[in-house]
Amino acid sequence: MDKLHPLFVHPTQKLWNSQLPRKSQLVYPLFVVDGENQKQPINSMPNIYRYSVDLLKELLEPLVIKGLKAVLIFGVIGNEDKDEFGSMAGGLGKESCVHKALRLLKQVFPQLLLITDVCLCAYTSHGHCGILTKDGYLDNQASIKRLSECALSYAQAGADIVAPSDMMDNRVRAIKELLDQHPNLRVPIMSYSSKFCSALYGPFRDVCCSAPQKFDRSSYQLPPGSRQLALQAAERDLKEGAGYVMVKPITAYLDIAAEIKRRHPDTLLACYHVSGEYSMLHAGAEKKLFDLKRVVLEYMEGFIRSGIDIIITYFTPELLDWLE
Amino acid sequence: MDKLHPLFVHPTQKLWNSQLPRKSQLVYPLFVVDGENQKQPINSMPNIYRYSVDLLKELLEPLVIKGLKAVLIFGVIGNEDKDEFGSMAGGLGKESCVHKALRLLKQVFPQLLLITDVCLCAYTSHGHCGILTKDGYLDNQASIKRLSECALSYAQAGADIVAPSDMMDNRVRAIKELLDQHPNLRVPIMSYSSKFCSALYGPFRDVCCSAPQKFDRSSYQLPPGSRQLALQAAERDLKEGAGYVMVKPITAYLDIAAEIKRRHPDTLLACYHVSGEYSMLHAGAEKKLFDLKRVVLEYMEGFIRSGIDIIITYFTPELLDWLE
Amino acid sequence: MDKLHPLFVHPTQKLWNSQLPRKSQLVYPLFVVDGENQKQPINSMPNIYRYSVDLLKELLEPLVIKGLKAVLIFGVIGNEDKDEFGSMAGGLGKESCVHKALRLLKQVFPQLLLITDVCLCAYTSHGHCGILTKDGYLDNQASIKRLSECALSYAQAGADIVAPSDMMDNRVRAIKELLDQHPNLRVPIMSYSSKFCSALYGPFRDVCCSAPQKFDRSSYQLPPGSRQLALQAAERDLKEGAGYVMVKPITAYLDIAAEIKRRHPDTLLACYHVSGEYSMLHAGAEKKLFDLKRVVLEYMEGFIRSGIDIIITYFTPELLDWLE
Amino acid sequence: MDKLHPLFVHPTQKLWNSQLPRKSQLVYPLFVVDGENQKQPINSMPNIYRYSVDLLKELLEPLVIKGLKAVLIFGVIGNEDKDEFGSMAGGLGKESCVHKALRLLKQVFPQLLLITDVCLCAYTSHGHCGILTKDGYLDNQASIKRLSECALSYAQAGADIVAPSDMMDNRVRAIKELLDQHPNLRVPIMSYSSKFCSALYGPFRDVCCSAPQKFDRSSYQLPPGSRQLALQAAERDLKEGAGYVMVKPITAYLDIAAEIKRRHPDTLLACYHVSGEYSMLHAGAEKKLFDLKRVVLEYMEGFIRSGIDIIITYFTPELLDWLE
Amino acid sequence: MDKLHPLFVHPTQKLWNSQLPRKSQLVYPLFVVDGENQKQPINSMPNIYRYSVDLLKELLEPLVIKGLKAVLIFGVIGNEDKDEFGSMAGGLGKESCVHKALRLLKQVFPQLLLITDVCLCAYTSHGHCGILTKDGYLDNQASIKRLSECALSYAQAGADIVAPSDMMDNRVRAIKELLDQHPNLRVPIMSYSSKFCSALYGPFRDVCCSAPQKFDRSSYQLPPGSRQLALQAAERDLKEGAGYVMVKPITAYLDIAAEIKRRHPDTLLACYHVSGEYSMLHAGAEKKLFDLKRVVLEYMEGFIRSGIDIIITYFTPELLDWLE
Amino acid sequence: MDKLHPLFVHPTQKLWNSQLPRKSQLVYPLFVVDGENQKQPINSMPNIYRYSVDLLKELLEPLVIKGLKAVLIFGVIGNEDKDEFGSMAGGLGKESCVHKALRLLKQVFPQLLLITDVCLCAYTSHGHCGILTKDGYLDNQASIKRLSECALSYAQAGADIVAPSDMMDNRVRAIKELLDQHPNLRVPIMSYSSKFCSALYGPFRDVCCSAPQKFDRSSYQLPPGSRQLALQAAERDLKEGAGYVMVKPITAYLDIAAEIKRRHPDTLLACYHVSGEYSMLHAGAEKKLFDLKRVVLEYMEGFIRSGIDIIITYFTPELLDWLE
Ligand SMILES: [Zn+2]
Ligand SMILES: [Zn+2]
Ligand SMILES: [Zn+2]
Ligand SMILES: [Zn+2]
Ligand SMILES: [Zn+2]
Ligand SMILES: [Zn+2]
Repeated sequence: MDKLHPLFVHPTQKLWNSQLPRKSQLVYPLFVVDGENQKQPINSMPNIYRYSVDLLKELLEPLVIKGLKAVLIFGVIGNEDKDEFGSMAGGLGKESCVHKALRLLKQVFPQLLLITDVCLCAYTSHGHCGILTKDGYLDNQASIKRLSECALSYAQAGADIVAPSDMMDNRVRAIKELLDQHPNLRVPIMSYSSKFCSALYGPFRDVCCSAPQKFDRSSYQLPPGSRQLALQAAERDLKEGAGYVMVKPITAYLDIAAEIKRRHPDTLLACYHVSGEYSMLHAGAEKKLFDLKRVVLEYMEGFIRSGIDIIITYFTPELLDWLE
Repeated sequence: MDKLHPLFVHPTQKLWNSQLPRKSQLVYPLFVVDGENQKQPINSMPNIYRYSVDLLKELLEPLVIKGLKAVLIFGVIGNEDKDEFGSMAGGLGKESCVHKALRLLKQVFPQLLLITDVCLCAYTSHGHCGILTKDGYLDNQASIKRLSECALSYAQAGADIVAPSDMMDNRVRAIKELLDQHPNLRVPIMSYSSKFCSALYGPFRDVCCSAPQKFDRSSYQLPPGSRQLALQAAERDLKEGAGYVMVKPITAYLDIAAEIKRRHPDTLLACYHVSGEYSMLHAGAEKKLFDLKRVVLEYMEGFIRSGIDIIITYFTPELLDWLE
Repeated sequence: MDKLHPLFVHPTQKLWNSQLPRKSQLVYPLFVVDGENQKQPINSMPNIYRYSVDLLKELLEPLVIKGLKAVLIFGVIGNEDKDEFGSMAGGLGKESCVHKALRLLKQVFPQLLLITDVCLCAYTSHGHCGILTKDGYLDNQASIKRLSECALSYAQAGADIVAPSDMMDNRVRAIKELLDQHPNLRVPIMSYSSKFCSALYGPFRDVCCSAPQKFDRSSYQLPPGSRQLALQAAERDLKEGAGYVMVKPITAYLDIAAEIKRRHPDTLLACYHVSGEYSMLHAGAEKKLFDLKRVVLEYMEGFIRSGIDIIITYFTPELLDWLE
Repeated sequence: MDKLHPLFVHPTQKLWNSQLPRKSQLVYPLFVVDGENQKQPINSMPNIYRYSVDLLKELLEPLVIKGLKAVLIFGVIGNEDKDEFGSMAGGLGKESCVHKALRLLKQVFPQLLLITDVCLCAYTSHGHCGILTKDGYLDNQASIKRLSECALSYAQAGADIVAPSDMMDNRVRAIKELLDQHPNLRVPIMSYSSKFCSALYGPFRDVCCSAPQKFDRSSYQLPPGSRQLALQAAERDLKEGAGYVMVKPITAYLDIAAEIKRRHPDTLLACYHVSGEYSMLHAGAEKKLFDLKRVVLEYMEGFIRSGIDIIITYFTPELLDWLE
Repeated sequence: MDKLHPLFVHPTQKLWNSQLPRKSQLVYPLFVVDGENQKQPINSMPNIYRYSVDLLKELLEPLVIKGLKAVLIFGVIGNEDKDEFGSMAGGLGKESCVHKALRLLKQVFPQLLLITDVCLCAYTSHGHCGILTKDGYLDNQASIKRLSECALSYAQAGADIVAPSDMMDNRVRAIKELLDQHPNLRVPIMSYSSKFCSALYGPFRDVCCSAPQKFDRSSYQLPPGSRQLALQAAERDLKEGAGYVMVKPITAYLDIAAEIKRRHPDTLLACYHVSGEYSMLHAGAEKKLFDLKRVVLEYMEGFIRSGIDIIITYFTPELLDWLE
Repeated sequence: MDKLHPLFVHPTQKLWNSQLPRKSQLVYPLFVVDGENQKQPINSMPNIYRYSVDLLKELLEPLVIKGLKAVLIFGVIGNEDKDEFGSMAGGLGKESCVHKALRLLKQVFPQLLLITDVCLCAYTSHGHCGILTKDGYLDNQASIKRLSECALSYAQAGADIVAPSDMMDNRVRAIKELLDQHPNLRVPIMSYSSKFCSALYGPFRDVCCSAPQKFDRSSYQLPPGSRQLALQAAERDLKEGAGYVMVKPITAYLDIAAEIKRRHPDTLLACYHVSGEYSMLHAGAEKKLFDLKRVVLEYMEGFIRSGIDIIITYFTPELLDWLE
């Protein structure tokens, strides 16, 4: 084809070349806290708040009416409730606001898909995503056992999908084996498989206060330059039984998303458009560098174009309007 | 391999997984203006200026010492010098500061690779990238003839590579045929082949004052959602004789870059990290969302990881330090 | 592109087409012997010596300063210390100079990656890479059990990576299973997976005195003509848990390297530029057939071009200078 | 298949995994000189001589009996016969020993395939592979015209295949167009398409005295690190009408050979095992680093394994014995 | 290349385009019977006989001298020796002429590769390839257990390769697991993986009297039209541990062979040129439709061209002459 | 999928795995002779006759009723009508029975697709497919000019498709250029592109008396072993403008068919099931080696399975019944 202009002249042709997501492909992250009537702003993330469980109905109802189909739930607890095992994350006889939120939302919005983040970093006193040895190193075996217990507790509380974000080795297999012992639960695993050690998680940490002690997460999150490890991680998790895999962050990792899709065309692929990506777009728009809506839609088109099926994004409320 | 942590424990393993660009892969864009002793700031782009030719040596000398190997030259002229044919762009008996800059730089820095942007939008009174018909539509045939003349004039003034950014159909072939008539010139073409109609070109337009009249560039820049057209464009331009092809913008288009590289592994692939991408990172860093150096390096790693060989970026000066 | 000359005219273009390794991609093989103050020349290998542990710091310090990031350690012991089980190779209550070297180097150069060759041929009285049955044949099962013990002992002594070179079937799986029982060790396996029965190992054997008795190694090293077996070997070892695979020798096996990389792009690929390849280049240079530096760099470019990520080479010291 | 040893136990299985060339795949390079009864040794190349035409029958007869099927003919002339146009290379009314050799061999050995190298470097006073402009640069257009005349003269003298080694852009097309004007000649072109600027051509230059003046051949031979240019060159030459393409040198370029074969499985692929490769093996064998026969056969297996169909090698006489 | 004639003018070029098999690629099927001095003709297969063990040496000696490297052994027993378990096939305390032949041939021709067909149909009273349930259906689990026992008995009697032809699901894995319990046996499996339910097995049945009772083999042999199942079967068997896979029949299934080779280039691929194909060529030649030798060589070239590595054919004796 | 039997248990599943041709995919070859009421048997081809034009309606009517959709027409003329230019083949002012048949059939069966073989061998006194030079060699240029004239004459007489079988270089381009000068004719070219020099054309030659004089057709038909040339030929002809390409013979060339289809999935692919293949199946059936119908259907399934779209076969009448 040596002339291309004739292929995108007509408005209908432009629609043919469009890749905007469907509303059903969006997942809205929720930060849930203890207490009542809590709507706590987050400094670095415009329009994003931590909510107490009693406010969730009010928050979500208009969104569900506009077409919201899925949420991803994170719990945020006070430091006084944290311990070295992250007991509040579930499975050790205690429960957090996440479990309460799951029960409530399952009842109030039975058609809404409830995905629950599974990790320990928001619940441990040391802020790491797993359990530590006495010497202060990660104990991978103990960690994945502990994460399985949490995942099971969420599934029993009503989660439709559990989403481990911890990046311990073999946690998908561990969770799957434990869930398989409860055959009445049909809860698949969405693995944060290709989660890079990115500089863009700062604002999220403001939400969850989860900066870890002693050593950082680069020992278990993937090096950004490593295509190899990112693809291995997705493949490994699929072999261990993941139902979905994820790329996180997404904007500067679309090559990874496209390659995972090319290799695993039968698997639905999720992405997490992270806090730093979200806030940076707001910052650019505030500076009048561009029109926020136009750039966000351009980026969303890119995600879908690369092969992404499921987009976890803080722009979900705006997109429910913009995609009307 | 079911355990991944052991693959990125040691610092040497992290280097093995690193994808930082080599300095020789960076290209620094230069905006050249008429006059003397001009160093005009650009509102929306921190640290970027328009320079008059007499200041270029001073600007570039320290960068060349640090390892700068290539520049991409744009001309910016006053509205009073523009006409409907973009005569100042060269080839019609007139010359601009770009031609002067080429002659100077070739003499002062003979080892520096001089790439010259070839387009009309900064030189035409109507602000479009081509020649218009009497009715105000693009005249593709007349446009590519005109662009060829400009390209030839740059090659004759010392350009090592000419880089058409106009997106007219078959302009690569037209330029190539004209250059081939001057066999002593061995000047390959770097085509802006996969240039999307992005919302991120705003700050650049502040530099060149090139917002077009009457209709926008979406009739010749590619729809962001169209993987098909982007890949066809690269393939077409390669068939027409392009020596290099380009993806522009790059951050949210890495899936396109990776796929072009997969299909055309024989071709060195360039990307243009555009003004909106540049300024947005500065805006985020100013808001303390992240550390600028860390995010820029993370992004650069992503570009290389996706298969990019040549990075045109306004961060070149900083990178020459950071990559030490 | 029907003209190619314009693509490699300018020095910057030549850099774009260059594939020289980064220093971090080089691994220097070390031959360690018992005793003190030992620096024993090797007849057939110019500039290569066997060193006692006490000389290692002095040997490596200037190289580390120049950018050495990784070594591969071999032990050489006296015939009087060999037995049919290769007891000195570790894991049976005894230790060799290799274990001592690992402890020392880990302490003196904590940033230096320590890879340890795992084999029995330098430690067994019969000179084979495994354990023999009473009838003098290889006992594969007994061999891989024994190799696992050695690998574990190296990991416990400080090895960052263990590299089995024995070519027994399923030794990667055996080593992995044993290492997995010690979860605090995060030591991946670099498998000599595609190790051909080459005529180029002669000089190395001068180092380690390891010519085997009774039958040669062609029963477990791969036939040079067999692309099939070489690719199967890499795939098998990856399935068994290898973190890295290797091609050995490399110069005349770049087709194998390129194909392994094409099939397993997610895996970092190592090569061993073996003693015969090393010494032959010296022999050619002595005869004034070519300039040593130029040919070595040409070969190294070839290795990288073929997809190799990690180069084990006796030319490492020279390359640390040449790549400045 | 998790066990590999059982696949190469039996001698018949080893034959199944063998890739030795057939004798018909070998091409023997001949250096022909003027004069009578000339058999001039070449310092750096053991067993290789320059022969006068009258000795060719005696040289080749025993080889043909052993199975020699093809030769590649080079001419070597005295400096006094060289001029700036390389007139002795044919097509300008003059003829060299090459033309005489072709006529003789066609008559004496009608079943022997006669390939003739087409280049100017052995015939020009300046030693370059093409014609120079007044300023001393390569004149690509004049060069390919001149090369076509030579090729035609060889075809008319009896060459079965002409093999341009000059690396000028578009010489395949030029030769093809000229040959097509003589439809009774059915002489295909074997292009030295992927000819790298290697450090291994030294000994060959001793044969032909062809070190060029003023600038070296790196402006038209390919950079060794460039997979891209090598693959483009093969593709370009095939498009221009080459019947066969070649990789030169071969040992450290097998990745290139394999990739060309993978992309162009329809094309018979030749390689040139060059003088430096030949002499280096002799040098290593002299030093007792290895057994010459064993290494040469190992290398030849590698060439075939990589996809090579036709091997041009100075080891042809030995191989005709060794392959018995 | 727009002209093709010049590529196949010269005799050497014709050799370059030739794909005749090497002698080592041929496997000769042997039918062995009880008794002494037996050489029983087979009506539908010219020149093919059933031999008693005592005649095998005499039969094979001249062929081995001509270059025969491998045989495939079938046993034929009297109906009076058959039972529902195929006990004579080995592993149940009984032995057949096949076991005797293996011991003899291993001693007389130690360099000859002995492949043994593994199936029950020539040994069961019902003529099926497996064990039947009480209701007369195939009992897959019991069948593969029984086949493993037979395979083991052949391996212990001297078979170098065992070749299951039964087409039960997972029999490769079952055989492999049993053989792996005898680590001193290094006997790979050549699976009749893509064995189609063809109309061309008639003459073979004349040899072995193996037409099955009650239902035909179309429930376990593959439908001829099914590319999918044929490719899945090869892949499944390779995953289960087959060392070689086979296509049977071959002439009209070369597309299957080529695709298996394309997907599994690492595996040596065998084909069985079956009795109906053999006899049909004789029938055509008898009718003077063509020259037998020329067509057989044309077909053999086709097998090799398609990617076949190992050819099992009744024409082996003729080919040992024709390939001289 | 480790169990395959469950995938082909049910009759409907077997249909899913079936690849029988549709009737519309069959093409019936017709041999037309001069004279009246002629129905001449052909010795070596059961049920095949040469017909005079007046008998064609009677022959074809029942077949058309059964579903015949296409014929391929060959002319057979007396030796007395042959000359060195093959004048009777059309375009030189003369016409043969082929032209008459075309006019008749177009009128009688307007829905029947008329393909006409284009060659000279049945019309030239020397029996070659082209025009000879004075020295008795093929004159490729004169031949393709002459073939174009014939093709044009058939198109003008009513052919829907012209099918050149001559194998001259570039005859597709020549025919296309001549047809393009008559834009009212919309007649595509079906090229006998991959026509091998097979031993299976004997019976056909009995039909047309076309054994050539002086040299055989191996100088222009393709060597059977050459996958390379066969694929190049298809690609070349498609580039020259062929609408369809063909493989001939087909049974032992299905690997070629499959590969052409894989590379050119957009092109309809024809095959010619030639006379030797046809007669050999009859010979085998006569010998009771197999059931003719069952084997023919098995082969036809194979052709379709390999990717063939159009089958030219002498079994067309039987297949019109068998496929009911
Ligand atoms: Zn966490
Ligand atoms: Zn423009
Ligand atoms: Zn060893
Ligand atoms: Zn030259
Ligand atoms: Zn059977
Ligand atoms: Zn013909």
